[in-house]
Parts: sequence; C-alpha cells; structure tokens
Amino acid sequence: MFENRPTSRASTRPAPVQRRGVERVQAILDAAEALLAEQGYAAATLKAMGERAGIPLASVYHYFGDRSQVEAELAQQHLRELDARIGAVLESAPGTLAGVCDAVIDLYLAYFREHPSFAALWYAGRNSTLGELASTFDVTQAARLWRYLVDRELIRSDTPMLAVELAFEAGDRLFDVAFRKTPTGDDDTIAQARRLVSVYLASFATEA
Amino acid sequence: MFENRPTSRASTRPAPVQRRGVERVQAILDAAEALLAEQGYAAATLKAMGERAGIPLASVYHYFGDRSQVEAELAQQHLRELDARIGAVLESAPGTLAGVCDAVIDLYLAYFREHPSFAALWYAGRNSTLGELASTFDVTQAARLWRYLVDRELIRSDTPMLAVELAFEAGDRLFDVAFRKTPTGDDDTIAQARRLVSVYLASFATEA
Repeated sequence: MFENRPTSRASTRPAPVQRRGVERVQAILDAAEALLAEQGYAAATLKAMGERAGIPLASVYHYFGDRSQVEAELAQQHLRELDARIGAVLESAPGTLAGVCDAVIDLYLAYFREHPSFAALWYAGRNSTLGELASTFDVTQAARLWRYLVDRELIRSDTPMLAVELAFEAGDRLFDVAFRKTPTGDDDTIAQARRLVSVYLASFATEA
Repeated sequence: MFENRPTSRASTRPAPVQRRGVERVQAILDAAEALLAEQGYAAATLKAMGERAGIPLASVYHYFGDRSQVEAELAQQHLRELDARIGAVLESAPGTLAGVCDAVIDLYLAYFREHPSFAALWYAGRNSTLGELASTFDVTQAARLWRYLVDRELIRSDTPMLAVELAFEAGDRLFDVAFRKTPTGDDDTIAQARRLVSVYLASFATEA
C-alpha cells in the first residue's frame, strides 16, 4: 500500500563487495537509530553516526550524501512496518467507530513507544526533511481508513476524504504535543487525542 | 494579557540619534513584512531585508543579530494585535459554544488573510525560531477561552484546561494545512477546522 524504493542497493545475491556495502549501510542506520533514541534528533549527525558505527566519515558519505538521506531511509523502513501493522489491526478491529479509532491510536502509540528513535525522527523531521514523506503516508492511510469506515457504514459515504485526512493531521499534532511533554507520550494528551478524533469522525457517522 | 518586551529601544522622547535608530528598525521590519508577504519565509533573509530597506547589512546587524530576532519582533507585534482582537471579539460573541468557536476562527482567518506575512512567519517559524513564543501565546489564549466558556456555562467547569489548549493545537494544525494549500487558506479545510474544534469542545458542554 505504501510504496518505497528498495532498502539498499544490494541485489538479491550480493557479491562480496556489495555485501560489505550492505553491512556498512546497516551499521550506519543502526547507529542513527541508537543516537535518535538515546540523544534525540539534534545529536544524530552523519559525523556522530560514523563514529558510533566505527566507519570513517568519508565512507559514510559514500553511502549517504547528507543526514536527510539517512532519515528518509529509516523513516521508510518504519513506515512500511507501520503500514503493515495498520493493515493487521483493521483486519480484527471492533465494529464500532470508537473501537476503530481506539485501535488505530493504540497502534501508533505502541509503535512510538517501542521506537523512540522513530518518534524523535517523525516529529523533528516532519516539518523539514521528511515533510513530503510524512504527508504521503498520512494521505495514504487516510484513504485506506476512509474506505474501511465507509464500507462498514461507520461513516456516511458522502464523508469527504479530506475529513479523514484532517483527523490524521489533528491526531498527529496531538501526538507531537504528547511526546514533547514526556518521552513516552503524555497520557492525558493521548486521551484527548482519542476523544478529539473520535467525536470529529462521529459527526460523520451514519444514523444508528 | 500577552506581555512582551517593548517594540524598540526608544524612550518616550527619543533623541535624534535614537530616533534614527527607531526609523531604521521600523524600515527593517517593514522590509521583512514585505518580503514575507510577497516571497515567503525562505526569501526573508537579513541580507534581503537590508537591500529592500536600503540599509547596509552591517547596520542591519547593529539592530538585529540574526533573522530570528526580526521574526520574534514581528511576531510579537502581530500577537499583541491578535490578542487585542480576540478580547474584542469575546466581548460581543454570541452566547452559544458554536458561535464562540466560529467567532474566534473567523478572527484568526481574517487576520491571516489580511496579513500574509504573518501566515508565512507563523507556520514556517513556529517549528523552529518562534516555537516557544507560539506555544506561550496559544496557552495564554486557551486559558482565556477556557475561563470565558466556563463562566458562561458553555463547557462544564471540570473541563480540563488541556482540552482547550489542544483545541488550539488542532485548529492551528488545520489552519497550517489550509494555508499551505492556498495562500488565502483553503475553504474546505477551514470549514473542517471549524467542525473539528466545535464538536470536540461540545463534548465538554453542559447539558442544555
């Protein structure tokens, strides 16, 4: 559902030189994840990644022209995983609008808590380097959720797609606030995010 | 209600040298406004401001150490005006929750449309240089609106202040989306912002 470029330049059966490249790329990505999780967005520079991975900076530049390329690669890996999880959750979500909202919000919350590196990246980067990637992901997920809710008659079929997109925008902003308050996401703010998204989408609900 | 440092260093009766300073500061601010409105955030550099105002860059640096200081000064002027207008609107707002939400949203919309420079500044700058200024303003306005709505029994007195703060956050994000879509703010998105804020706050309404 959410298409990306391949994770690395490796073909399916890498030659030894290619394999070394794949390993180094992965070491840089791992270092970036660790820096983001432990020290936050500002600390995750290419230089720091190279030092952490034990790879000379010149070699780091061989694989990534600047830090935004590392960020895009990491974000894409996380978004593929998140996309798969959203698919799985919708397979077994309860049949009420509030239930679906809760299930999706729980999933995002669990994902950000499991992956503090991604929370750091998503909220620091989405207003700069990751802006377009983030928008594309949100619009894609909104379209999927719109279809899902309309098919199950949980919202009216004349509900504008824009409404579900904006529910994602608003929910995302409240998550941003929650994760700026505490590293694990402030519970009161998350509870309000749940309420805001639910009551807004409920205003498009079909009559019982 | 929203306290700021003075607009300039001028005393009430500036000496000639001070007056020249005041005029130059104002010329730089005017140039910044024009650049923001006509060419957007990225174009409004100190260098471009100096050229536009006909003031040598070295002199510009005499008054402002970097562009973020110009931005803060402009933002504070706008926020003082916005604060005054919010006060005035609440004086004469209709007595329903939806009416108050509409009045406040109309006011923001009109202000951003009248001042495209401020829209450019607010949405490009609030995630970086203006972040703290923007948060402080929103929290202050949320506290004022919470008090206003509770006093008129339009929301329950046990409504958390956080809820009104988050209504501002969500509304702000949807305005950001609207003004990224078109320079005057996409009407459909603004209509949804209205709906989202209203139904969310209505979930805290007292029983009729």
